[in-house]
Amino acid sequence: MILAPGKKVLALSGGVGGAKLALGLARVLEPEQLTVVANTADDFEHLGLHIAPDLDTVMYTLAGLNNPQQGWGLAGESWQCLDALAALGGEDWFRLGDKDLATHLQRTEQLRQGRSLSQVTRDLCGKLGVQTRLLPMTDGPVRTMVQCAAGEMPFQQYFVREQCRPVVTGFRFDGIESARPQPEILQLLQGQELAAVIICPSNPFVSVDPILKLPGLRQALLDCSCPLIAVSPIVGGEAIKGPAAKMLRELGREVSAAAVAEHYHGLVNTFVLDEDDATLAAGIRASGMDVTVAPTIMRSLDDREQLARVLIDVAGGET
Amino acid sequence: MILAPGKKVLALSGGVGGAKLALGLARVLEPEQLTVVANTADDFEHLGLHIAPDLDTVMYTLAGLNNPQQGWGLAGESWQCLDALAALGGEDWFRLGDKDLATHLQRTEQLRQGRSLSQVTRDLCGKLGVQTRLLPMTDGPVRTMVQCAAGEMPFQQYFVREQCRPVVTGFRFDGIESARPQPEILQLLQGQELAAVIICPSNPFVSVDPILKLPGLRQALLDCSCPLIAVSPIVGGEAIKGPAAKMLRELGREVSAAAVAEHYHGLVNTFVLDEDDATLAAGIRASGMDVTVAPTIMRSLDDREQLARVLIDVAGGET
Repeated sequence: MILAPGKKVLALSGGVGGAKLALGLARVLEPEQLTVVANTADDFEHLGLHIAPDLDTVMYTLAGLNNPQQGWGLAGESWQCLDALAALGGEDWFRLGDKDLATHLQRTEQLRQGRSLSQVTRDLCGKLGVQTRLLPMTDGPVRTMVQCAAGEMPFQQYFVREQCRPVVTGFRFDGIESARPQPEILQLLQGQELAAVIICPSNPFVSVDPILKLPGLRQALLDCSCPLIAVSPIVGGEAIKGPAAKMLRELGREVSAAAVAEHYHGLVNTFVLDEDDATLAAGIRASGMDVTVAPTIMRSLDDREQLARVLIDVAGGET
Repeated sequence: MILAPGKKVLALSGGVGGAKLALGLARVLEPEQLTVVANTADDFEHLGLHIAPDLDTVMYTLAGLNNPQQGWGLAGESWQCLDALAALGGEDWFRLGDKDLATHLQRTEQLRQGRSLSQVTRDLCGKLGVQTRLLPMTDGPVRTMVQCAAGEMPFQQYFVREQCRPVVTGFRFDGIESARPQPEILQLLQGQELAAVIICPSNPFVSVDPILKLPGLRQALLDCSCPLIAVSPIVGGEAIKGPAAKMLRELGREVSAAAVAEHYHGLVNTFVLDEDDATLAAGIRASGMDVTVAPTIMRSLDDREQLARVLIDVAGGET
């Protein structure tokens, strides 16, 4: 055991990168020691289905069912329905696999019957054998709108349909003013069990910010006595995956881990940099943030576990 | 050409048996000479999808995409989604194939956008290469409720979930009072082009009656000068497929083609009996109905075409 019994870790995650670290944490902690909160601001309604890409990526990854090559969706997926839908002239820009469809059908049906997204997520995790507590950041609707020169568009339209091509000028999280953070998050932050809050190496603008901007959450994080640790999603001036680097550039910021650290300034206690970016450590430290340099690129399962151990060590765990 | 140019046939159909004859008719007539009306009273909402089993069976059959062994659904179908749904604890009693799901997703999405069932059907047929005009009997919701000792249940629950086990006492077509027959049906019946109306060998209680009981349709059929021809779905005291024989028995009627003829008495001009039932012809004729004896069991494509030719001959076509 690397964390004292009764102690817990709260991880805030987007999709792929966050899911990798969540899996590493799940493998080195006891099931009851880890709670993962997934961004749901990239959820959307498509073909009448409630689709929750980040939540599902984390769920499938924790279940060991994810497709590691493509980074999203299920391993061994088939595409019979999508191919037939395309032949019927239906919308096929969002790649819905046959098995993945079952998740969306079941979630949508359960939501229609009045269950909350967190209840449905708990059920789905149970059926898939996920022992980690996985929470949608809120049960209410929050939707990321990507602001571009031509106006704003829903996140999945930007991300999947437009392949992140439009130049970004900002983001708006529709519905966030009236959204309530998942009560379990606040309970954890207000309790005595938490050893650390970890911001996974996810996109700071569209994966982490929607969670941090939930009403009351930032203040609850500031009020919490445990360390808040963030892992940089930018390594060597590039994003490991996704449009984070492109967004930094288009928003006029430096494309570096240092810019991400700056983004989290005033909230995060310890910033975790990849070894490739060790030269940035001094500058970030000078801004008043602790810095830990570690291998953060998670290619293997060992990499995931190793990074998890480093983070728990930073949190003061018993390594 | 077996029917004079400009002359048309209107066929009323349920699922499998009706679809076989519809295909036979489609193969011996020119595309513009045939309109097929499918029962939609066995449509239902399932997992948020609008499912139209009879309409789809006819559509898939006319497109040459149907699964001839199982009688419903698509050939070469896969079941990845349904298997995954079952693993998630979802409802898997209604067998939704991966390709078939695309039809339901696309139809439901189009209906949600405000299009009518007949418009959506026309589009789907176009995409699948179906040249025959296929019409849902109505664009409004009509739902067959099967009455049993224990109460009534929606048709698909009786038919699929309960495998037709409950003893039937009657039927109710929920919503039929306010349903409007598809306008094209009435236009055909009121026009001069129709050579015959053919009631396919479908279940008289749950496939044909919902069509016949649409407000104004029976009167329009009676007012129409062209012959109304019905093909018996009962041969040798058994239904070729489905619960028609069981229903006749439970309703206290004789299980025979003669009982079906009696059911259509006062409406149908010519009743088409299988050769196996030739001895019943005299009795049916005595009741005032014309009778044609012909091979009605459609095993091969030739059988389907042959029966279609017999019916057009009965209608006075130029064979």
